[in-house]
Amino acid sequence: MPAQVEIFSQGEEVITGQTVDTNAAWLSQKLVDMGFSIKRHTTVGDHLNDLKTLLNEVSLRADCCICTGGLGPTSDDLTAQAVAEAFGRPLQLDPVALQQIEQHFTRRKRIMADANRKQAFFPQGAVRIDNEWGTAPGFAIQQGRCWFVFVPGVPSEMKAMFDKHIAPLLLQRFSLQPDRLITLRSVGIGESDLQEKINTLSIPQSVQLSFRAGSDEVQTKLLFPAGTEPQQMKMLVNQVVRAIGDYIFAVDNLDKRQGGLVDTIDQLMQQAGYSLSIQETASQGLIAAKCIAKPWLVSSIYSQSFISSSENDYLQTAKQLAAKIRQQEKTDLVLVQLYRGSQQQFQQKEQNILLYTLLLTPDGCQSSEFTVGGDIKRKQNQAAILALDLLRRYLQIPEYSKD
Amino acid sequence: MPAQVEIFSQGEEVITGQTVDTNAAWLSQKLVDMGFSIKRHTTVGDHLNDLKTLLNEVSLRADCCICTGGLGPTSDDLTAQAVAEAFGRPLQLDPVALQQIEQHFTRRKRIMADANRKQAFFPQGAVRIDNEWGTAPGFAIQQGRCWFVFVPGVPSEMKAMFDKHIAPLLLQRFSLQPDRLITLRSVGIGESDLQEKINTLSIPQSVQLSFRAGSDEVQTKLLFPAGTEPQQMKMLVNQVVRAIGDYIFAVDNLDKRQGGLVDTIDQLMQQAGYSLSIQETASQGLIAAKCIAKPWLVSSIYSQSFISSSENDYLQTAKQLAAKIRQQEKTDLVLVQLYRGSQQQFQQKEQNILLYTLLLTPDGCQSSEFTVGGDIKRKQNQAAILALDLLRRYLQIPEYSKD
Repeated sequence: MPAQVEIFSQGEEVITGQTVDTNAAWLSQKLVDMGFSIKRHTTVGDHLNDLKTLLNEVSLRADCCICTGGLGPTSDDLTAQAVAEAFGRPLQLDPVALQQIEQHFTRRKRIMADANRKQAFFPQGAVRIDNEWGTAPGFAIQQGRCWFVFVPGVPSEMKAMFDKHIAPLLLQRFSLQPDRLITLRSVGIGESDLQEKINTLSIPQSVQLSFRAGSDEVQTKLLFPAGTEPQQMKMLVNQVVRAIGDYIFAVDNLDKRQGGLVDTIDQLMQQAGYSLSIQETASQGLIAAKCIAKPWLVSSIYSQSFISSSENDYLQTAKQLAAKIRQQEKTDLVLVQLYRGSQQQFQQKEQNILLYTLLLTPDGCQSSEFTVGGDIKRKQNQAAILALDLLRRYLQIPEYSKD
Repeated sequence: MPAQVEIFSQGEEVITGQTVDTNAAWLSQKLVDMGFSIKRHTTVGDHLNDLKTLLNEVSLRADCCICTGGLGPTSDDLTAQAVAEAFGRPLQLDPVALQQIEQHFTRRKRIMADANRKQAFFPQGAVRIDNEWGTAPGFAIQQGRCWFVFVPGVPSEMKAMFDKHIAPLLLQRFSLQPDRLITLRSVGIGESDLQEKINTLSIPQSVQLSFRAGSDEVQTKLLFPAGTEPQQMKMLVNQVVRAIGDYIFAVDNLDKRQGGLVDTIDQLMQQAGYSLSIQETASQGLIAAKCIAKPWLVSSIYSQSFISSSENDYLQTAKQLAAKIRQQEKTDLVLVQLYRGSQQQFQQKEQNILLYTLLLTPDGCQSSEFTVGGDIKRKQNQAAILALDLLRRYLQIPEYSKD
């Protein structure tokens, strides 16, 4: 019987629907991967009695509970107080926490508000969980059956704290037998097409197959039960990769975690020692923005004047633009994207635009053409992703399609 | 005391984090606007005992519960069975529901699978809720203190059923008095500084004050109880606005919903008839990306060569750059951002960079300087937001600081 864990989110903005609770899903995925069984997610608002009632309930029925939110400096942040009252453990100053909070402000050359002192008080018996990413430290405490962990609700802080501090503690405290989840990450192909490509294979009943479509990629997930032979796992994964083909840019968790499309490109660009300049249209800065601080990105230009063109000869226009940019910027690679469609077609979600992307390389040109629909943010994001994927395809030797 | 409602989501894909539960947030917003008080969101997986336990708990403590998911045709859809067993109300065929399901398939020229018959069985005493948008009808049932409503988890069906059938039923059954939420949206100031600025005011106990920090803005929220005099509400909001000052770029829901920073700028730019070109560094395309398809943005250039400079005279460098861009692009406004800091300082979250932003206008120059910390994505986003805020401050007449 795997350890039973609950997720508990706190905050008026979540309970009233101002914020969609993405923390619960993120934590659940991590915990399932580690081998926990997730029993409940619960959200309550910033009300002391609601918090206390829930804490008491959970302490009786779960082995572990991860709680997000309510650790801020303001008067509506009540988590520590609720824990103190519910479990009869008075709040005590943690001097190290206070020091950390003060340092956080000193480093930013700001003065700590008096309100922030509150964030250094923990219920008696709590263990501090450091937060190097924001002001509020978290804490952990055992009460009844349950080991509670409290972290801030700010997703970036919560995630960093979970990965660096909480996951190792969980592995120490619980004896877990995780299933093995292998994720095939792809761009330029949809869920149903992926399913059809895989349908030809015979996948054992014990292996759970699922798909997940995000804005930047589509993932094919294979969940192998604990104890599956590595050799057997690798064979099946390779079969699936071959069936899907070069839409796949990375396979996570077979040998290692490989990261997203930009991470993959970053590795390949650094290996090859190439430099890149970009001309953006529909993506409007988003290609460059996704490549933040990558040393191989020399420049990116967005200009309204190239947004749309009624010409049919995109290849010629794009080639001329690319050659001009190469001359100016002296980069090994030049990525140029154009699109066909009016401003209205771009802005209305019922209408499509045609994206034309060209990559000028030392070995000549490569290009791609895609029709893209959806609202304007989706079109913008797809434009960026499909441009980056053309670059990835040029750089990547398809290692997973070889044995 | 407003009626207390809970949201209950069911499904393995939600509890394991494969799907983010957007239904709960959507329903909560609707219900808060109607005047309900939301007490809890709870999610459980497709396990009969977990469902029954939760249904019994809720029947004792809530006035109303909206339940999504678990009404499908497959064996893991257990909601109706759980209700039947938990509340001792055997499942009974609803002939009208069966007819509707059959018609759904006939209209699509498809044959109804035997499994779909199951969806026409409701617990004894339930009232059918029609679903014109999918196969599974919903149902409502009173048990103990609580009126339960069960709808499919497919967001499009759930939303259509709520708006057309469920909202009118709720208005009939509950006597509701909606509160009024007014949101003050600001940039360039943190939660604790906001709290301190407001501390000088005396806010009535009946008005609930809260804060919300996002990556793009910080919100100050004032929740007024139903029946507050509009004049009184406006007076207090104006006091708070004056106390905070021109960090505020918009006030939502006093006269109207105003939208985010870019929406505010968009309105002001269109009113003024200005055009803009941008030189980006730390934001690396993100200023342009946030202004997607805004007709007044003429061009944006990111270039590595301007990333960092050891010079002290930022003003001079930025002015020269801006003048050059204005000459090239012929725009009314030119926004130039530079920063001081090495690549390493930019990339390491423990280190800060200094952002220097200059706006060249027909009436001269305006500039701002900020120290920004956090991981690279936070620095990038802050750079974009603070540059846009300089533009907003130039365009906006502070209407809320006048009476």
